[in-house]
Amino acid sequence: MTLHPPHRLLMGPGPITADPRVLRAMSAPLVGQFDPVMTGYMNATQDVYRQVFRTTNEATLLVDGTARAAIEAAVVSLVEPGDRVLVPVFGRFGHLLVEIARRAGAQVQTVEVPWGQVVDPQRIADAVRTHRPRLVAVVHGDTSTTMRQPLADLWAVCAEHDALLYVDATASLAGNELRTDDWRLDVVTAGLQKCLGGPSGSAPTTLSDRAADAVRARRHVEEGLRTDDDEPRGTVIGSNYLDLAQLLEYWGPRRLNHHTEATSMLYAAHECARIVLEEGLDATVERHRVAGAAMLAGVRGLGLDVFGDVAHKMHNVVAVHVPEGVVADAVRAAMLDDFAIEIGTSFGPLHGRVWRIGTMGVNARKDAVLTTLAALEHVLRTHGVAVPAGGGVTAAQEVYAA
Amino acid sequence: MTLHPPHRLLMGPGPITADPRVLRAMSAPLVGQFDPVMTGYMNATQDVYRQVFRTTNEATLLVDGTARAAIEAAVVSLVEPGDRVLVPVFGRFGHLLVEIARRAGAQVQTVEVPWGQVVDPQRIADAVRTHRPRLVAVVHGDTSTTMRQPLADLWAVCAEHDALLYVDATASLAGNELRTDDWRLDVVTAGLQKCLGGPSGSAPTTLSDRAADAVRARRHVEEGLRTDDDEPRGTVIGSNYLDLAQLLEYWGPRRLNHHTEATSMLYAAHECARIVLEEGLDATVERHRVAGAAMLAGVRGLGLDVFGDVAHKMHNVVAVHVPEGVVADAVRAAMLDDFAIEIGTSFGPLHGRVWRIGTMGVNARKDAVLTTLAALEHVLRTHGVAVPAGGGVTAAQEVYAA
Repeated sequence: MTLHPPHRLLMGPGPITADPRVLRAMSAPLVGQFDPVMTGYMNATQDVYRQVFRTTNEATLLVDGTARAAIEAAVVSLVEPGDRVLVPVFGRFGHLLVEIARRAGAQVQTVEVPWGQVVDPQRIADAVRTHRPRLVAVVHGDTSTTMRQPLADLWAVCAEHDALLYVDATASLAGNELRTDDWRLDVVTAGLQKCLGGPSGSAPTTLSDRAADAVRARRHVEEGLRTDDDEPRGTVIGSNYLDLAQLLEYWGPRRLNHHTEATSMLYAAHECARIVLEEGLDATVERHRVAGAAMLAGVRGLGLDVFGDVAHKMHNVVAVHVPEGVVADAVRAAMLDDFAIEIGTSFGPLHGRVWRIGTMGVNARKDAVLTTLAALEHVLRTHGVAVPAGGGVTAAQEVYAA
Repeated sequence: MTLHPPHRLLMGPGPITADPRVLRAMSAPLVGQFDPVMTGYMNATQDVYRQVFRTTNEATLLVDGTARAAIEAAVVSLVEPGDRVLVPVFGRFGHLLVEIARRAGAQVQTVEVPWGQVVDPQRIADAVRTHRPRLVAVVHGDTSTTMRQPLADLWAVCAEHDALLYVDATASLAGNELRTDDWRLDVVTAGLQKCLGGPSGSAPTTLSDRAADAVRARRHVEEGLRTDDDEPRGTVIGSNYLDLAQLLEYWGPRRLNHHTEATSMLYAAHECARIVLEEGLDATVERHRVAGAAMLAGVRGLGLDVFGDVAHKMHNVVAVHVPEGVVADAVRAAMLDDFAIEIGTSFGPLHGRVWRIGTMGVNARKDAVLTTLAALEHVLRTHGVAVPAGGGVTAAQEVYAA
């Protein structure tokens, strides 16, 4: 069977439609792993991601896997068994951080809020003071609830208690303001399949000098490559594949042989960043802001109720309550079958109770927003919901006109 | 900077030149993660890899990472801290298995031989009887030495002592005979960047029912997704990203949400397998055998000495001793700079002492073999090696003529 994927407009919480430029970039031929051309491409990729992360961190690289590979790389490389980790939880991906930290042997404390809210930064600060964690691990934007956690001032309490600060920016990077250096974030990881507009499978990652030093203090060069100069240091990192100490030496001047870099995915990651930087990072974020505002106005224009604390919503995704009496998945199926548009539902307590509609990457654009709203209007009406004719499209157009 | 990779003929130990069909496959548009089209593609991918692995294993899937991601997934999902693991070591990638098993908390015993040999199966059998390992982890073809370990009869002693048998077939699959079911291998993992002719970044993996049961006996559905029916079982697997128990539920009928499948890499993996199956797996292996024999004859025809036990060489790579007085890397650089052909050196004790020349995937073909030999002849002569004019190409042509 030949794979001939049908047309899809992916307006869910991600993955979203990849930019055709990114897909084309992946069709470039391979070069060898240590070919100067390839190591030059690795350097170039580090450079563009420094700009996307707004950092000067030397230790900026790709982890070869989906976004959660980099989450795990960050956690397992920073946390030693028995370390205390604090996780503010405001959705599924906070639970994922708990899960990963526990598997890494951490003692995990959480600060939880009901889904649809963000965590009061004061509560996080208090918890840092109480628990004295080695690491504070926090999601920036949690797609399960659409919430975006304020992070700009968290560094102060972390610095006060010598805690490292890790941020999962998978869903937020390039669609929302994120300032690695200004916010003094120690490690930030992402993925391509959200606002960066690429396929999943490569995970941009950056580490502050402090975090890189912490990781390097646990450097164990692997069996079969270790030289006499490679005295093992500190507690061995539990994973070889996700060992940032070794990965940094592969991405650094030593070019330590580790895995074989996923070359086509590197081409994709590089092109994702280039597209953002050509538009300008501020402009890309602003485009996401406007598209998100238009979609928000649009779903309200259709009479739908928006889920959660809208003041803290990510730009790039909105969750709406499924109206009484409507089968959430039937509407999603009709959107897909009749209009080739994908929208999402959510997890756990929100499964079947909300739809999540994304406006990210190449799909954070007017025609995608209006088309989705027009289709949704028709499908909702078919499913017995009284929707104002044109209410969604008109409201969204007003945002674009403003 | 736009990435415009130059022409390269990648005749090293891998990655090798990707088949243009595979590169084109990656440019297909994305579909959503749980779109019936996508889950259909996942099923189709499992089906083609069952054929490539020569297995009926239901538990056949892709791990989203490079080959070593799947190695670690297999080891960390099968091995509990404290378990005994036996690793026959005949090159760098045996050491890698030791490394990964140790990080997973295993007590590792090895059976080692000098590089350039394979391990006598009787020694492995004796070690199994002595050490009673939970897992025997063995490399099929170790590119660091080019050796291919005989595996067909290893199952018997494993069965006798209830040990699981894991095989790293990264470098061998589709270029050498490998029979998962006939050889009763419990877990086999691979990568795309060798004989399968794709880019690294996706790792085909198959598990016998016995291995899948062992993995499922440690199923811990992650925080944030766990339902009342998901009672945790057994010892938690140390990794979330590489947790085969959860991955099998993502690839199985439950479609448990885990990572977002690396869709473009799945397209690549699927196309790699299709190319093999269209040619016929036996024919693909035979093509690798002939290309390897031609390259072997060719390097000998140039007067070079072949490294190691040639009777146990993989089809798809040959190592030759660097002649006295020649700087190995200078020859490699001239091959790359003047002819755009990449050949490799090796690791550890063999670094700078051998060149490794691969004939794999789409490059296991006559013109690639002859071009490489013609170029190597010129470069060697330039570097002061007395090589018979046409000796390499002629010898290789004779293999093709026979």
